[in-house]
Amino acid sequence: MHTEDRESTPTKSEDRQQPRAHTRRDFLENLGRVAGVGATYAAMTGLGLLSTPAQAADRSPQLPRVTELSNKVGKGKSVAIIGAGITGLTLAYELSRLGFSVTVLEATSRHGGRSRTVRGGDRLQEYGGIQEVRWDKEEHLYANMGPARIPYHHQTVIGYCKEFGVPLEVFVNENRGSLIHESKAFGGTPVENRYFVHSTRGWMSELLAKAVNRQALDDVLSSEDKEKLLVMLKGYGELDSKYQYPGASRAGYRVTPGAGLVAGELNPHASLQDLLSSEYAKSNLSFTEEWNQAATMLQPVGGMDRIVQAFAKRVQQYIRYDSPVTSLRKVGDRARVAYRSKGEERVLDADFAIVTIPFPAFTKVPNDFSAAHQAAMKSCQYTQAVKIAFQADRRFWEEDQHIYGGISWTDQDIGEMMYPSGGLMSRKGIIVGAYIRDDGVGTRYAAMSFPERIEGALRCGEQIHPQYRREVKNGVSVGWPKVPYQDGGWAVWSDAARAEHYPVLTQPDGPLYLAGCQVSYLPGWQEGSVLSAHTVAAALVDRVSARAAA
Amino acid sequence: MHTEDRESTPTKSEDRQQPRAHTRRDFLENLGRVAGVGATYAAMTGLGLLSTPAQAADRSPQLPRVTELSNKVGKGKSVAIIGAGITGLTLAYELSRLGFSVTVLEATSRHGGRSRTVRGGDRLQEYGGIQEVRWDKEEHLYANMGPARIPYHHQTVIGYCKEFGVPLEVFVNENRGSLIHESKAFGGTPVENRYFVHSTRGWMSELLAKAVNRQALDDVLSSEDKEKLLVMLKGYGELDSKYQYPGASRAGYRVTPGAGLVAGELNPHASLQDLLSSEYAKSNLSFTEEWNQAATMLQPVGGMDRIVQAFAKRVQQYIRYDSPVTSLRKVGDRARVAYRSKGEERVLDADFAIVTIPFPAFTKVPNDFSAAHQAAMKSCQYTQAVKIAFQADRRFWEEDQHIYGGISWTDQDIGEMMYPSGGLMSRKGIIVGAYIRDDGVGTRYAAMSFPERIEGALRCGEQIHPQYRREVKNGVSVGWPKVPYQDGGWAVWSDAARAEHYPVLTQPDGPLYLAGCQVSYLPGWQEGSVLSAHTVAAALVDRVSARAAA
Ligand SMILES: Cc1cc2nc3c(=O)[nH]c(=O)nc-3n(C[C@H](O)[C@H](O)[C@H](O)COP(=O)(O)OP(=O)(O)OC[C@H]3O[C@@H](n4cnc5c(N)ncnc54)[C@H](O)[C@@H]3O)c2cc1C
Ligand SMILES: Cc1cc2nc3c(=O)[nH]c(=O)nc-3n(C[C@H](O)[C@H](O)[C@H](O)COP(=O)(O)OP(=O)(O)OC[C@H]3O[C@@H](n4cnc5c(N)ncnc54)[C@H](O)[C@@H]3O)c2cc1C
Repeated sequence: MHTEDRESTPTKSEDRQQPRAHTRRDFLENLGRVAGVGATYAAMTGLGLLSTPAQAADRSPQLPRVTELSNKVGKGKSVAIIGAGITGLTLAYELSRLGFSVTVLEATSRHGGRSRTVRGGDRLQEYGGIQEVRWDKEEHLYANMGPARIPYHHQTVIGYCKEFGVPLEVFVNENRGSLIHESKAFGGTPVENRYFVHSTRGWMSELLAKAVNRQALDDVLSSEDKEKLLVMLKGYGELDSKYQYPGASRAGYRVTPGAGLVAGELNPHASLQDLLSSEYAKSNLSFTEEWNQAATMLQPVGGMDRIVQAFAKRVQQYIRYDSPVTSLRKVGDRARVAYRSKGEERVLDADFAIVTIPFPAFTKVPNDFSAAHQAAMKSCQYTQAVKIAFQADRRFWEEDQHIYGGISWTDQDIGEMMYPSGGLMSRKGIIVGAYIRDDGVGTRYAAMSFPERIEGALRCGEQIHPQYRREVKNGVSVGWPKVPYQDGGWAVWSDAARAEHYPVLTQPDGPLYLAGCQVSYLPGWQEGSVLSAHTVAAALVDRVSARAAA
Repeated sequence: MHTEDRESTPTKSEDRQQPRAHTRRDFLENLGRVAGVGATYAAMTGLGLLSTPAQAADRSPQLPRVTELSNKVGKGKSVAIIGAGITGLTLAYELSRLGFSVTVLEATSRHGGRSRTVRGGDRLQEYGGIQEVRWDKEEHLYANMGPARIPYHHQTVIGYCKEFGVPLEVFVNENRGSLIHESKAFGGTPVENRYFVHSTRGWMSELLAKAVNRQALDDVLSSEDKEKLLVMLKGYGELDSKYQYPGASRAGYRVTPGAGLVAGELNPHASLQDLLSSEYAKSNLSFTEEWNQAATMLQPVGGMDRIVQAFAKRVQQYIRYDSPVTSLRKVGDRARVAYRSKGEERVLDADFAIVTIPFPAFTKVPNDFSAAHQAAMKSCQYTQAVKIAFQADRRFWEEDQHIYGGISWTDQDIGEMMYPSGGLMSRKGIIVGAYIRDDGVGTRYAAMSFPERIEGALRCGEQIHPQYRREVKNGVSVGWPKVPYQDGGWAVWSDAARAEHYPVLTQPDGPLYLAGCQVSYLPGWQEGSVLSAHTVAAALVDRVSARAAA
């Protein structure tokens, strides 16, 4: 293989530099993508937007208010939205502005669904019982037990934050000062993230430089390539003049450099075997570099639920709480939704119904979706995620270990510990002591009693922070598989299921639609939920305008 | 070479987990390191600290106030501190609390020195004239023209922030969504940082996997090592099942994944030649991974000068502004400092004098330091750093390009553009349009007129952001080599000068001391300045207690 064989057209700046900010125009673009040019045109005229110069619209801090516009494309059409998570809330917000008459049926007494920020005084319902959250009440004393992160390119969610005035701050995902704990490497002693990462880079660079210098890659590298590659490797791996990695400054110091004659002492050289034996190297070395995890990551100041609260404020009047849907039927070309409210069975008929319930919960609801839809929903797996959080009266991770946000990784059950990015240097803090994303472990933890989960988290946590057990208190957990009307974490599509089953879910069955991040290529992300809501809204606009035209 | 030959003792957790937070005890430890056990003991008794359990002291949010303690080790001794930058301010604060009688002589009308945060209404003096800063006045509309960053391990600076109640927030140093612009790569088109970085990792991993699979490294890798290394490389480089890098998700998308059937389209595969031809790969690919640059990076909310302001508030009474020192003499075993004030020549006699002036400025002041000291100061080079900043009435980098903080790199004169980490999503912002760290370019830019600098920055900037010229206004620059009483950026010690000349500077010449980050292993960092101040304070404590004992 010769490197020249490869295509080398990079992302063109014209592509990149096109505004992608969430705007009315973006919504119309989504709409156009899904519904075709005709519908977009119709919607644009309908919204009175064709006259708005795109450039100006992009810059307006507030989107043009659809309700202020005359032509209402959804007028006279009713939509039942099932579930008041961020998908249902977005649908209610956008469809009501488009003139549809909307009703949101929500099983529980709260909106937000998985967007669950926990604070002192909250009560957490699971099948196994209720936990009361006994944390102090201060702005920064919260834990995002569901979504916690917003990557910079989730511009639709970020756009809503802007529109609603929800302030965002930086979420620290990668922290070179946090810890890696591996029971089978480094003698079980936690090491600093920078030590692990830069020792690895050093080794990789040393080995590749050796191969280059041994002429092992001469068929794929010209001599000019080789020369430049060696320069790059020396920089990348902090190699010495012999292209060896001796241990270097990026991997940190045992004695940090100071003033006077305190030159500092480097950390010792790490063995390749220790690095290679670790789970972290296998699974999470590039976690914070993934498409949805790389800097700059953001979070709403004060908790993720600030977003759903902002939505809910605007659509409160359409939501019926404590109204679990018990069946969903097609009656002619309309939808019939049965639900329970104040002990009574009720029925809501609507022109359309949109289901935003996660599949594991929805499959419990008798419904008229086609066999193909049912099979597709069954083919989609949900994670068994569990999070556990504690209050600390002293931010020992900051004070003792100088960890400001980010993640410490371990091969123990808890998987990771997450430190708050907000309220840095304040006295108290909430630490996420476990974020279990391994389904085996998650199933086990979800099945435990609440105190057993806490004890498990403490036992693991004190391997990483010896002071842990005496510093934290009032642990609470959310075992997502055990949360009523959730029954799982987030959707995971296998390649096979995505190819065979997924596409049908993007199509309605008569008056019945599905929406949520499970019906997107961003499952497990609010951006997927919100984009899915836009997509279904656009399909409805298309449908009612086509009908109107006919 | 066999990997087993290498030492593999990692950082021990006992080492790491020792509190290193800035505390009274840290100060005493610095003191002990420099001055020996005797002095530490004396100081500890002097400060009445021997009775304070270390643990409790570490946890106290406020340090014990030395002034509240009875025994004043510095009583009756006078110290002239020359310069009111962070070094002089720290010295004034700590020495006055130790009972010394201190006077700070500052040449200019402001304290802070290089810790210079620029805001609307400021006037910037250079030899070439004055610039008036015509920016709007809002909390986030500032530019740190000197120090901007605090790495998480600069615990002495962070400790003072805590002590003084200066809130810190995250400083975004690495941003995978920012841009890399290379005139000689990618056809001169800016590409996303993630595209560059992950294409590079992909290539490196593919090449190393190839070498491993060709048995080119069998003498240094066991077959178990090889197997594990391949797993790691596959993950690190996002390689396919044939260990090839085809271009993958971490390098970003031309069309981002969305809802419905929008699966997304990957960016095209980058050529190794484009990557290798870049300055970025040669010089800055690992910039944000350096000891002092890696996450978590912090900044004071509202501007770096919040720190020096907090110091100054506490030592205001000791500072004489507009008092440039004109000579420094030894008279017997005491110091005689001549300075100008209100047009008059004045003299200050003191037991000790501590010089915190940067060397390029200090060498203009006739002084009695030994020939060895003079030679050492001359052997230390200072950078020719220049920064240029603009106001934008619209955060176009956020709105159009979704860049939230961080750096875009270019091989043009400006070197880099820095986006604000504070005030995310607010309307207006200050963008640092140039941070010139190349001495050749810096010398050239420092020599330009103010408008020429601005025009240079605009010409480069619009290669990266086409909308730049019409979006920014009121550019201002600081050419550090042209700032009176500074005459340069920060100290850079060559290995040779460090070995031959540096050590003498850590020693006083009779009553004359030197302090500042140039007298540390953290030159160019406030932490070096503050630690150097502690070191000199400790040496004085040692000296006066030894005398008292004698
Ligand atoms: C542990 C975890 C971490 C995550 N991390 C992130 C992250 O960092 N960033 C991010 O963007 N996303 C993250 N996500 C994904 C994010 O939570 C989802 O994308 C989003 O919240 C889903 O919103 P939704 O409205 O589609 O579904 P949900 O929020 O699940 O809402 C469904 C609603 O339907 C209701 N309901 C269920 N059954 C019925 C019924 N029979 N009748 C009436 N109502 C019913 C439920 O009560 C609920 O209110 C995470 C999720 C989890 C679980
Ligand atoms: C462009 C740039 C970027 C930097 N970035 C960072 C960063 O990100 N993080 C960080 O921590 N550090 C950074 N630094 C370094 C930081 O600015 C210094 O470490 C620190 O500010 C130096 O403080 P000082 O008190 O030792 O010297 P100075 O701040 O230079 O103070 C010296 C003082 O002496 C006065 N003086 C000079 N001559 C006389 C005289 N004859 N008589 C009386 N007074 C006199 C001056 O007016 C000045 O007030 C940066 C520096 C520069 C220039």
